[in-house]
Parts: sequence; C-alpha cells; structure tokens
Amino acid sequence: MKLFISRGAPSPRRVMMFMVEKNITGIEWVTVDLNAQEHKSEAYRAKSPLAKVPALELDDGRVLTETRAICTYLEGLFPDTNLMGVDAEERAFIEMADRRAELYLLGGIANTVRHTHPGLAPLEQPQFPEFGQSQALKVREIAAWFDQLLQQQAWVAGDRFTIADITAFCAIEFARLMKLHPGREGLLALQAWRDRVADRPSANAK
Amino acid sequence: MKLFISRGAPSPRRVMMFMVEKNITGIEWVTVDLNAQEHKSEAYRAKSPLAKVPALELDDGRVLTETRAICTYLEGLFPDTNLMGVDAEERAFIEMADRRAELYLLGGIANTVRHTHPGLAPLEQPQFPEFGQSQALKVREIAAWFDQLLQQQAWVAGDRFTIADITAFCAIEFARLMKLHPGREGLLALQAWRDRVADRPSANAK
Repeated sequence: MKLFISRGAPSPRRVMMFMVEKNITGIEWVTVDLNAQEHKSEAYRAKSPLAKVPALELDDGRVLTETRAICTYLEGLFPDTNLMGVDAEERAFIEMADRRAELYLLGGIANTVRHTHPGLAPLEQPQFPEFGQSQALKVREIAAWFDQLLQQQAWVAGDRFTIADITAFCAIEFARLMKLHPGREGLLALQAWRDRVADRPSANAK
Repeated sequence: MKLFISRGAPSPRRVMMFMVEKNITGIEWVTVDLNAQEHKSEAYRAKSPLAKVPALELDDGRVLTETRAICTYLEGLFPDTNLMGVDAEERAFIEMADRRAELYLLGGIANTVRHTHPGLAPLEQPQFPEFGQSQALKVREIAAWFDQLLQQQAWVAGDRFTIADITAFCAIEFARLMKLHPGREGLLALQAWRDRVADRPSANAK
C-alpha cells in the first residue's frame, strides 16, 4: 500500500500520526506537492478524483480517500493499538469527539488560515479575509471550550488517547499559522494537553 | 431515548431518515426551535454543549451529538438494515462516500445558504454574501461530479443504498434554498437518483 501525503498540511498528518501510534510499517509515504498543484494533475486525480490528500492506494489498486475513512480501514487491518473504539458504543462517542475536533476546531482554523494567510493563496481562490477573520473569533471560542473540557478529562474523548487527540493536535499545530498559542491566551489545560501529545513519538510524523 | 431535532435543517433529517430506513421505533423526537434560539438555551446546552442539533439522549442520561456519531451508535444497537458497512473495509469505503457528500456537497450548500439566504441570518452572523456566492460555484462543480458518479453506479457509495445516500439526499433537498435543481441544470443522473430516494418512505421524515 502507498499513502499519498503532503508536508505541512494537517489532514495527511492525522493519518501519519495514526500510523505511528499503531506501529504500522510497510506502507510507503509518497509526497504530493500542493504548492506545485500536483494534487490537481491528471495522474493524481486518476487516484483521488476530488484532488484530496491524503489518499491510500491499496494493493488491489483501489484508492481510499478522506482522512477518517483511511483510519477506519487501517484500524480494521491493524486493530492494536485501538484508537477509534472497541465496539459500536465506544466508536460512536469517540466519533463525536473526533468530529468536534475536526468540524469546529480544525474546520474553523482551516477556514481562517486559507482565507487570511498569503501563503495559502495558491490553494484558496478567491480568499475572503473578512470571512477568515470572523472564523478566527469562532476558533478562539471553540478552543476555550476544549480548554474547559481538558480541565475535566485527560484526553479529548475521555480517559484514553484516541484519534480525537490526533485530530485536535494537528488542528492546534496548524493554528500557529493564525498565531493561536493556547498558553499565551490563558488556555492552560489545552496547552498542557498539547504539550503531552507533542512529547509522543507520533508527533514527529509530519 | 430521545432524539432532539429541528424541522427543515438537513442534519437532523439525516438521523430521522436513518431511523426510518432501519425501522427504529420507540425513540421520541423532540423539536428544538432554532429560530427562537432554543438550541442556545441553558437547558439545551446542558445536553448539547456546543448547541448542536441533532442530539440523542440515552436512557442513562448521556447525550450523543454529531449526526454521524449518532448513526454509528444506532447502527450498533439496530444492525439491520445495515447502512454503514458490515466490516471495517466496507465501513471505510462507505465513510469515504459519506464524507464526500457531507464535507463538500452539504458543507458547500450550507455555507452558501447560511451566507446568502435572508432566512438564515438569525443563525449566521455576520453573513458574508460574496463568500457564499463563491461557495455556490464550488457546489455546482461537486454536484456535477456526483452526477458523473451516478452515471456509473446506482448509489452514492456503490451498488446499494447507504448512509451516504441519506447525506447526499438531505444536501440536495436543502440546496433548493440556493435554487439548485439538478435536472434543470442538466444533471440528469443526479436528478434521477434524487427522485428514486424521494420515493422511499424515509424521505417523508423531515
């Protein structure tokens, strides 16, 4: 199998961290150059028709896209260490936590960065800076909510490290591009959690 | 169990259709009035802290939010008719299809409607109409992609009806608010698929 990634983007990083956490080896990482628009090339679109990265090419030639779907597939193949839930009930609660991290935290950060950062202009046309700035306010609200949550529990989905921590961590790391540093804004529980995740070997996969 | 819904919104409708497709009865549907800002009330936030609808209150008092997470839970409790995949591999491919329908089709439609429709102004402040209009162009591109897909296969995830059809159907129905009618724009396969879903009894749950 081959995993198509891009360096510096949060979604491929989620799958890379997921693989390292599970000690999955033997899947080649192939870099796609977003700035060179390689993801929009005919060759890449033959694999990922909506030009999305990451994408997992299976040995039978089928290609799976969408970060969380790739993780679902890998969790099935490599059940240890479990990161997505051991039964439907736990899977549902972890999925809730993961979606909160993805849709509201990472989604808001991505909207902010894509619409306000000059470096993202090649990927987001047209940019709407005022929309991006309004999203930044919402990101700070949701970051404060995660801070409160992490005052009450050790990890994003509860009492153990899961895929939801990977998603939230990749989001907070990407938020450097909007100059969001939790500790400097008084979000001390969020910062402490971020630092604990940053100490894990998987955080080096990027 | 109680399912908190709102009428006319696409995400609660997804869970309602999912329940009807699976013949799940015995879960009360409780309406939350979004226009009256009931979702932001202290009482509702005690259940759904991010003020999101739908939410499923379990008999033990825990509350599950996030459309797809609620469906994961219900699929575990009521495995027939299977709508999300029978094993990890099928779950992954259906999740990919469902995310494409949710993130790009429904997400783009929601951005368009929330930022351009006067009726959504109470829920989206501030609105950025130019951003909304740029999203409408992307929605038409992705709708055309779904049309091509549905020229090749009967259902959004492949050869059987799944949760991905529910998500895409609720998206296309919501797109009436941005005056997107697939058939009138020449997207005949998308229109024919939409009409087949609309004939199912579950389409009346809204």
